[in-house]
Amino acid sequence: MRVLGVDPGLTRCGLGVVDGGAGRTVSCVAVDVVRTPADADLATRLLTVADAVETWFDTYRPEVVAIERVFSQHNVRTAMGTAQAGGVVALGAARRGLPVHFHTPSEVKAAVTGSGRADKAQVTGMVTKLLGLAKAPKPADAADALALAICHLWREPMRARLAAAEARAAELAKVHRSRLAEAAKKNARAGR
Amino acid sequence: MRVLGVDPGLTRCGLGVVDGGAGRTVSCVAVDVVRTPADADLATRLLTVADAVETWFDTYRPEVVAIERVFSQHNVRTAMGTAQAGGVVALGAARRGLPVHFHTPSEVKAAVTGSGRADKAQVTGMVTKLLGLAKAPKPADAADALALAICHLWREPMRARLAAAEARAAELAKVHRSRLAEAAKKNARAGR
Repeated sequence: MRVLGVDPGLTRCGLGVVDGGAGRTVSCVAVDVVRTPADADLATRLLTVADAVETWFDTYRPEVVAIERVFSQHNVRTAMGTAQAGGVVALGAARRGLPVHFHTPSEVKAAVTGSGRADKAQVTGMVTKLLGLAKAPKPADAADALALAICHLWREPMRARLAAAEARAAELAKVHRSRLAEAAKKNARAGR
Repeated sequence: MRVLGVDPGLTRCGLGVVDGGAGRTVSCVAVDVVRTPADADLATRLLTVADAVETWFDTYRPEVVAIERVFSQHNVRTAMGTAQAGGVVALGAARRGLPVHFHTPSEVKAAVTGSGRADKAQVTGMVTKLLGLAKAPKPADAADALALAICHLWREPMRARLAAAEARAAELAKVHRSRLAEAAKKNARAGR
């Protein structure tokens, strides 16, 4: 499975493509950062990010897109820009029928380093090691994009199993409820 | 000038097209709300909003797009969705070369009602009156989209004048600085 990991942003948007192999083996296909000028207007910056991602879709043909879920940041203005950059990437993927998954920063850190509170240096270090890269990807946004892709590759089987289990449980609950309703009706008819 | 006003959102995205005439006259061309199901995934919801806006671009051919600027909301999750919906609308406009402007809620309220703290009912009331509508547009997101378009039509001449004045001032300052630098050089050569 080939995953495009995206660390969304307007100033820097990290993009990383990772192939997942047997077991936990992962290999880096491409990594880069898209930058947009801070003095450009928002719509133009979003267009630059969206166009870059389109090129990556064409060039690397990922099967899934994994985007960092933005919850909040100290700077609301930055958080909004980050959310919007992530939104246009998700839109581009949806237009191509590619599944999109969001992972929180702590999920990504936990998947890659074992700790949800790892710092940027630890994430970069583990990403470099896991992918067997000759040197550490820079800036941190590039390493984060690769970490997102790895996180998705490793979490996805679990997520899929969980989703299947929940769907089965919901189906069983439905059957159970309809039987209960039938029994209640029968009891009512019996005058009880 | 024809403006598409957008009150962005995933649950409800307000769209309103307003034509500006001589002076402050405004007329309503179209107004509606796009809804996306809360249980759909984010990428699909963004695609629904983006597709609806594309249809509006084709049908009503606005010359400018005015979007509500999201600063923050009590619910961070909602704020992110709102920002992302606004982002995909801005992207669609940028793809067509349409200018995009953002206005804050208080700018919109002030433009339409005279007070930046007007409530929803007051905004809806003024929008209905200004556009001479037979009945109030509902829900509030529809009225807000029309208010955004009106706000843009009324603020734009001022904004354009201000931008021109600022550009002129920057140019003058540049000339002034280069003359100062020349004078300093001359003084240095004169050994002073």
